[in-house]
Amino acid sequence: MDLNADLGESFGSWTMGDDASILRIVSSANVACGFHAGDPVTMLDSCRGAYELDVRVGAHVGYRDLHGFGRRSMDMSFDELFGDVLYQLGALDGMAHAVGASVDYVKPHGALYNRIVHDSDQAEAVVAAIQAYDPGLPVLGLPGSAFLRLASEAGHPVFREAFVDRGYLPDGTLVPRSQEGAVVHDADAVVERAVRFAVRGEVLAIDGTVVRVKPDSLCIHGDTPGAVELAAAVRAGLEEAGVEIASFA
Amino acid sequence: MDLNADLGESFGSWTMGDDASILRIVSSANVACGFHAGDPVTMLDSCRGAYELDVRVGAHVGYRDLHGFGRRSMDMSFDELFGDVLYQLGALDGMAHAVGASVDYVKPHGALYNRIVHDSDQAEAVVAAIQAYDPGLPVLGLPGSAFLRLASEAGHPVFREAFVDRGYLPDGTLVPRSQEGAVVHDADAVVERAVRFAVRGEVLAIDGTVVRVKPDSLCIHGDTPGAVELAAAVRAGLEEAGVEIASFA
Amino acid sequence: MDLNADLGESFGSWTMGDDASILRIVSSANVACGFHAGDPVTMLDSCRGAYELDVRVGAHVGYRDLHGFGRRSMDMSFDELFGDVLYQLGALDGMAHAVGASVDYVKPHGALYNRIVHDSDQAEAVVAAIQAYDPGLPVLGLPGSAFLRLASEAGHPVFREAFVDRGYLPDGTLVPRSQEGAVVHDADAVVERAVRFAVRGEVLAIDGTVVRVKPDSLCIHGDTPGAVELAAAVRAGLEEAGVEIASFA
Amino acid sequence: MDLNADLGESFGSWTMGDDASILRIVSSANVACGFHAGDPVTMLDSCRGAYELDVRVGAHVGYRDLHGFGRRSMDMSFDELFGDVLYQLGALDGMAHAVGASVDYVKPHGALYNRIVHDSDQAEAVVAAIQAYDPGLPVLGLPGSAFLRLASEAGHPVFREAFVDRGYLPDGTLVPRSQEGAVVHDADAVVERAVRFAVRGEVLAIDGTVVRVKPDSLCIHGDTPGAVELAAAVRAGLEEAGVEIASFA
Repeated sequence: MDLNADLGESFGSWTMGDDASILRIVSSANVACGFHAGDPVTMLDSCRGAYELDVRVGAHVGYRDLHGFGRRSMDMSFDELFGDVLYQLGALDGMAHAVGASVDYVKPHGALYNRIVHDSDQAEAVVAAIQAYDPGLPVLGLPGSAFLRLASEAGHPVFREAFVDRGYLPDGTLVPRSQEGAVVHDADAVVERAVRFAVRGEVLAIDGTVVRVKPDSLCIHGDTPGAVELAAAVRAGLEEAGVEIASFA
Repeated sequence: MDLNADLGESFGSWTMGDDASILRIVSSANVACGFHAGDPVTMLDSCRGAYELDVRVGAHVGYRDLHGFGRRSMDMSFDELFGDVLYQLGALDGMAHAVGASVDYVKPHGALYNRIVHDSDQAEAVVAAIQAYDPGLPVLGLPGSAFLRLASEAGHPVFREAFVDRGYLPDGTLVPRSQEGAVVHDADAVVERAVRFAVRGEVLAIDGTVVRVKPDSLCIHGDTPGAVELAAAVRAGLEEAGVEIASFA
Repeated sequence: MDLNADLGESFGSWTMGDDASILRIVSSANVACGFHAGDPVTMLDSCRGAYELDVRVGAHVGYRDLHGFGRRSMDMSFDELFGDVLYQLGALDGMAHAVGASVDYVKPHGALYNRIVHDSDQAEAVVAAIQAYDPGLPVLGLPGSAFLRLASEAGHPVFREAFVDRGYLPDGTLVPRSQEGAVVHDADAVVERAVRFAVRGEVLAIDGTVVRVKPDSLCIHGDTPGAVELAAAVRAGLEEAGVEIASFA
Repeated sequence: MDLNADLGESFGSWTMGDDASILRIVSSANVACGFHAGDPVTMLDSCRGAYELDVRVGAHVGYRDLHGFGRRSMDMSFDELFGDVLYQLGALDGMAHAVGASVDYVKPHGALYNRIVHDSDQAEAVVAAIQAYDPGLPVLGLPGSAFLRLASEAGHPVFREAFVDRGYLPDGTLVPRSQEGAVVHDADAVVERAVRFAVRGEVLAIDGTVVRVKPDSLCIHGDTPGAVELAAAVRAGLEEAGVEIASFA
């Protein structure tokens, strides 16, 4: 089972998250590429750190929106989005190669991630950019999303992620953040869910239904208080349960 | 003899220059990389246009300063400048490869170009970034500059440019823009100077002295009124004089 | 009848439109505030030019999106949009007062203009920002929009604009740009429509229906080829028909 | 004696400093205006917090350089710098008035602060912008700087600041950061220096010389670890010594 987390989200004099600690826990690092977060120095640090700890580097491509941290949905033409994604992939590639690493997969960020669950036009632009960069590059995303479907059709290896601290509906989709049960706060429960995802390929929905979900990667967070401890607990719990942590890439 | 010009300096809804016309005249296109000008769509267009016309693509790396068009000198640490230059190189690389082209050389832009004539610290950061991206990449710059010296020491093939419409001092340096004679406005004189650079490897300084200058490339401009016509006249004049126009790269 | 046009849309080294000419035609200038276009030097020039020609200054507030020229719809929280609009109003106010002018009205730009026709949440944030800046400030917008309704409820004098070169549906709304008849290209027809709006308070819809539209302002464009000539023709046509051109503010 | 500190330096999702705590210690808050740090939401929060605690609001104007946090010296023309400073002043003014506060003084930030100690051209542009905004606005700066001299000549009330944690040379200037003794790290020593500045109008230079310095304001920091505690200790030390903390404005 792969563990992925967002990294490299500092910008200039502003820091975010405890990247050094998270890098010791995950097997895949989603590295921000400078459009929603991250700057060249941070990207280099992230790639170097990942390389040294044998963690895979993912391009965490996002909207061109530093002020909104890429969390605000934006209309974009195909050409604009294609260009912006390809630009970010190339930029991260330059950073990765400079330290001996490489871009091993792509995972869209924030509002772009959410939008291309359903918006086929934007999903198509993102997939086209990834393909223009490397037609065999793995992609990581939400099961059932337009993004994964189009990427798969285009010939990219696709990997599906699950969220260890999010509530699920009986149909396997996430409980919207506006509703109760959207986030699981109890640490033990989070660890238990991680193990259940990994060992049994299932999750307990908020109504108690058992839902089949066989993720290739579990997404954990590193940028909230207590996040690193929780992430470490998830990893420890998985290993205790005999689950091997390793990248899909 | 190579002819180089700046291209791809549009940004979003703002256009600059007549790239389509200039691409038919030059053998080397200095393509802006998004920090002082250029955006991904423009970069793709520039690379595609250059590729189709067999024009070499140069990375026109500049300061992170859209508002000042990279024309304002900035203090930067080694790490910051190294990162910003490497980021731009990677980004343009992604664009170039998507259309079958490649980054064939680097020419710094504007205030960065001028600064690293003398500022060895910034020159060193730029050279280190180019080397991290591709240790054999050709660079284009001002003869006698710290940039060319350090790039050469680092093993990069270096190529020297001359300016067909700029006045020269007897010591081979440019007449400062604040002084009379800094710019040659007469079209015939510009063409004559271009031919003299190419055929005899020399230029007439403002005091009439003949100065030995053997450039590998002549820089022409495409973004001022009448620039395209002048550029075409320069090319025609060179060809009439039997000079073959071809990239150094 | 008021004539309004967008102005001050240059940015740094990039110019857009022929502001000097348009300022001699309109009675109201929508001045970009630096978020989608415009920079401080351009804003000062626009305010100075408007002041000298006795043209009213409108704050043309837009999304924080230079790359997209404010033409891409964006999700934003109330606080973010409130802050961004208030910031732009204050910034333009500083420029206007420095040259003896003042901010006389507000007209949202581009995607924000279109979004707050229907999106009451964003409209509310824009209105709240205008009110925080000046509770009596006039606003200019689309008849029937959520923006004008909420601004009116909040006590702002509201003024309604019509478009001299856009097709209208029988219900008084604009023909979508994706449909035929969205734009009127014939210059004579545009002038005729301007006069009909001003004299009779009506427009011929694309199906020939006469639609009652009594605008307070007619919007003309200055940033496309031939735009200045057309704008001058509209003004001349209105004056010939005995319509006095004067700001609503 | 006035106590001033930098505030409002968060941007979007990135936070910096503990503004709520610092606001309870200082009498003057230097609020970032969005060019080197700060965004509209942060600016509103800072102005509101200052207003509620009866702290004066200063415009902390800086270079247009989010990535470098305004800490990189930049060449700028008079018009560009005049415009950028005026824009920031107007923007903060809009924020301040929306919450009942006002812009009470100006203190340039970072590299701009340092540059206009000696660079008269840039100092003149900054002063001209402040004067265009409000010809009677107080300014806060370094004793002996071109900035304070020109502001004074232009009729602005000028106030001089000293640094409680910086080493001084016998001539009253600061020990350069590259030299030993540039920063005073011992908390007791910092408090003692603050009291000496306030009570005796003097400071012990690094060679032990007593230097006459009669500041109007003491600058403290809030964005480093332990900074809030140190700032509180400085305030407590001053009050114990009978010094009344009050703004100069």
